[in-house]
Amino acid sequence: MAKTAISPTREENYAEWYQQVVKEAQLAENSSVRGCMIIKPWGYALWENMQSVLDGMFKATGHKNAYFPIFIPLSLMSKEAEHVDGFATECAVVTHHRLEKGEGGKLTPAGPLEEPLIVRPTSEMIINETFSRWVQSYRDLPLLINQWSNVVRWEMRTRLFMRTAEFLWQEGHTVHATKEDAVAETERMLDIYAGFLENYMAIPVIKGTKSDAERFPGADDTYTVEAMMQDGKALQAGTSHFLGQNFAKAANIQFLDKDGTQKHAWTTSWGVSTRMIGGMIMTHSDDDGLILPPKVASAHAVILPFLKGKDKSGDATIVEACEALKAELEAQSYAERKLVIELDDSDTAGKKWAWVKKGVPLRIEVGARELEEGTVAVTRRDTNEKTVYPRAEFITKAPEILADIQITLFKRAETFRADKMTTEITDKEAFYKRFKNDRSAGGFVLAPWDGDAASEKQVKEHLQVTIRCLPLTDQDVAGKNCVITGNPAKYMALFAKAY
Amino acid sequence: MAKTAISPTREENYAEWYQQVVKEAQLAENSSVRGCMIIKPWGYALWENMQSVLDGMFKATGHKNAYFPIFIPLSLMSKEAEHVDGFATECAVVTHHRLEKGEGGKLTPAGPLEEPLIVRPTSEMIINETFSRWVQSYRDLPLLINQWSNVVRWEMRTRLFMRTAEFLWQEGHTVHATKEDAVAETERMLDIYAGFLENYMAIPVIKGTKSDAERFPGADDTYTVEAMMQDGKALQAGTSHFLGQNFAKAANIQFLDKDGTQKHAWTTSWGVSTRMIGGMIMTHSDDDGLILPPKVASAHAVILPFLKGKDKSGDATIVEACEALKAELEAQSYAERKLVIELDDSDTAGKKWAWVKKGVPLRIEVGARELEEGTVAVTRRDTNEKTVYPRAEFITKAPEILADIQITLFKRAETFRADKMTTEITDKEAFYKRFKNDRSAGGFVLAPWDGDAASEKQVKEHLQVTIRCLPLTDQDVAGKNCVITGNPAKYMALFAKAY
Repeated sequence: MAKTAISPTREENYAEWYQQVVKEAQLAENSSVRGCMIIKPWGYALWENMQSVLDGMFKATGHKNAYFPIFIPLSLMSKEAEHVDGFATECAVVTHHRLEKGEGGKLTPAGPLEEPLIVRPTSEMIINETFSRWVQSYRDLPLLINQWSNVVRWEMRTRLFMRTAEFLWQEGHTVHATKEDAVAETERMLDIYAGFLENYMAIPVIKGTKSDAERFPGADDTYTVEAMMQDGKALQAGTSHFLGQNFAKAANIQFLDKDGTQKHAWTTSWGVSTRMIGGMIMTHSDDDGLILPPKVASAHAVILPFLKGKDKSGDATIVEACEALKAELEAQSYAERKLVIELDDSDTAGKKWAWVKKGVPLRIEVGARELEEGTVAVTRRDTNEKTVYPRAEFITKAPEILADIQITLFKRAETFRADKMTTEITDKEAFYKRFKNDRSAGGFVLAPWDGDAASEKQVKEHLQVTIRCLPLTDQDVAGKNCVITGNPAKYMALFAKAY
Repeated sequence: MAKTAISPTREENYAEWYQQVVKEAQLAENSSVRGCMIIKPWGYALWENMQSVLDGMFKATGHKNAYFPIFIPLSLMSKEAEHVDGFATECAVVTHHRLEKGEGGKLTPAGPLEEPLIVRPTSEMIINETFSRWVQSYRDLPLLINQWSNVVRWEMRTRLFMRTAEFLWQEGHTVHATKEDAVAETERMLDIYAGFLENYMAIPVIKGTKSDAERFPGADDTYTVEAMMQDGKALQAGTSHFLGQNFAKAANIQFLDKDGTQKHAWTTSWGVSTRMIGGMIMTHSDDDGLILPPKVASAHAVILPFLKGKDKSGDATIVEACEALKAELEAQSYAERKLVIELDDSDTAGKKWAWVKKGVPLRIEVGARELEEGTVAVTRRDTNEKTVYPRAEFITKAPEILADIQITLFKRAETFRADKMTTEITDKEAFYKRFKNDRSAGGFVLAPWDGDAASEKQVKEHLQVTIRCLPLTDQDVAGKNCVITGNPAKYMALFAKAY
């Protein structure tokens, strides 16, 4: 047994460590289709828990789910010029609608379509076109719709969860009568994402708006939540777009207002995806593998009976006791969810380490001694702390222990981010030095910026550093000068290398 | 106001009546993408309820959800010859991975793929290929996986929910060590479908197996549940396939058995889709529009305040009382689900009829008089029966009334089916006469069949009648002769015209 369950360690090779964590936790794997992943049951259960919480939040704020076609006709996609240009390099295109036997009986595409269809990379165009039929009067507004679906973006370099050709997500699309209402919706959904990421995924985030260069194609303004990974790189964890009237004009969403005049509406869109799972892994996992935040964990605990194996006397009694313990624990709840408990009575060597690597928050060991003493030996995944509890006490206390793990993970991530965050660098040399350090990606740097695309481009080219956002808070730039050009600063910008 | 809320009536034009019911209920609509539908919030809420029940049933029988790529490489799809041939005429094919500006700046497909990708019409090949990696030993079996996803079949003639180019479904895929286990799984899932359709959708079904001609491409045996629509046509509502070792051999799923030898596994697959919604509409709706079975209804009831409008005195009090009523009703449960109550305080003329057409099981009217008397006036959608209840009594009784509607709908459908079902016709002339009747599609006919593909083909060509299934029960053919050929019968077959 190596010192750690995952090889290599984070220190040795962060990128490879990540792949191994995903693999050993059995969250996902690559498929035979370029860039498309298979989400395995342990990963999909996590996604279902995330969906369930988010879906509740969307519904509580008045949104309804609907479903729109996976295909977008090329001509429709082209109606918003900036939008189609933004996705043109990564579109999967359907051109034929059947297969035909060609030479040697080999099947080849046949039945060319009159118009190519794009597999949706995002659904603004098809949804806003539909909205142009649904919205006629101010009485139809606001229109608040969400869709859970798959989308396809033909990325050249992929990485499980972080960037895949197909991924699962939700995309909200809303229509409003006024600019103010649309901006308020954009901000409301950003707050929901931030709340979800911090309170459920235990990932601290910074809220802000994107610079012109980093904005969603076709949006007037993109709001983002940015997280800090353990290698010092930033991750964009969710975005909420104020689309102005751009898509309403492209798709002709007009309504008869109270004043009797016909007006173009204002729209928004917002989305989070399976990418959040990548962010969660990179935030919490350690050199022993995955660590799952209890609120979204695929299971809250695993019961591991200590079995004698060969001489099986007493084994049946232990397994029975474990089944009873499982049932009693599953009657408990944490964070509005019944506890989900696994029981692993396999006789595989190293089954304990399999569960460590799967990141289950609690491991409960029960053997002959525990049975006799009426105790359970419980190990927390986050701290590796092992405590022997009287059985009944543990059952009652389990939700409280899970709550403590949830908070511990968040605080640990927050402390880590504070270490990786510099506020602020005003000196260009220090800024360059910070991001040229080889051993770390450099973390977050909050620095004054002149708001000029040229200076932004310069640090991207020199350092692979981008402006992650202009944070919603700390925007006091009075008397400050741009860290890159020395010109008077317009914004405080959060710089980082990013996934 | 016409006599009925839907025009035309079922009698006048059944096909058009169906389209109007879907439209007026705001369940779904056609999109600008050929054959692809948009599922509107009222329809999607119904689908979510259906998913939730089915998903619970799958999990209770040990299945886990996972997610597999939307694309299947052509070479992989071609590994099972019968399978690929079965889907070749309806495959959407992705051939390019980006867009490029051509002449006149027009975007055209670019970046041709080395190998075309099929948008999944079903996922046997991509999932079984994955299973070949997951399954190594008898310890890995059974492997019980389900996927919720979209699929695409390029159908030439489409109809909302019944047959669309893209639809939503679940597909179960399982691997077993023995033929017996795989057959048992196939039958177990058929029973789950039958139970769901009868107990939740209130659609009576007949369970049976398909004839060779109607079998799933690549399966050894296809089990089906068949329902009877109000126009006398049958609908295949769900299928469960015993795949034998065909896909295990094509995808090379082998395992080391207990006896130390390497064996090919046995697989199954089974699915139901948004098509069930079409079946539900055609089973329960009437000339006033949709009727939703309470157990899956998008909402259980709508509260309709009687408002005075112009002279608004008292209106606020009424709306307030309705909000309180809504909250109290929503604390009640029916069929393990909290009641979902809509409150419509709009001042639209004809709002009552809008809700009739949306099929909500109960309409609750509250006006000044009801407020004064402490009553509510409740109309059942299934019977149009209006009852005035003391408010408190109704709140307690609501789940019971919903249960009665659920049963009433099922019984009504069962009675209807009994009327449309003839057991049995043994005479060819009578059989032909039955299906040549112009005013009705002919319903179900149970008749002896010689098991010969030729006789099956003959009635399909002459009458557009197919063998829906060989029912699991009533297979006593001793001394009976085939209704078509007069030869000794091998099976009792259920004949019908079908969707």
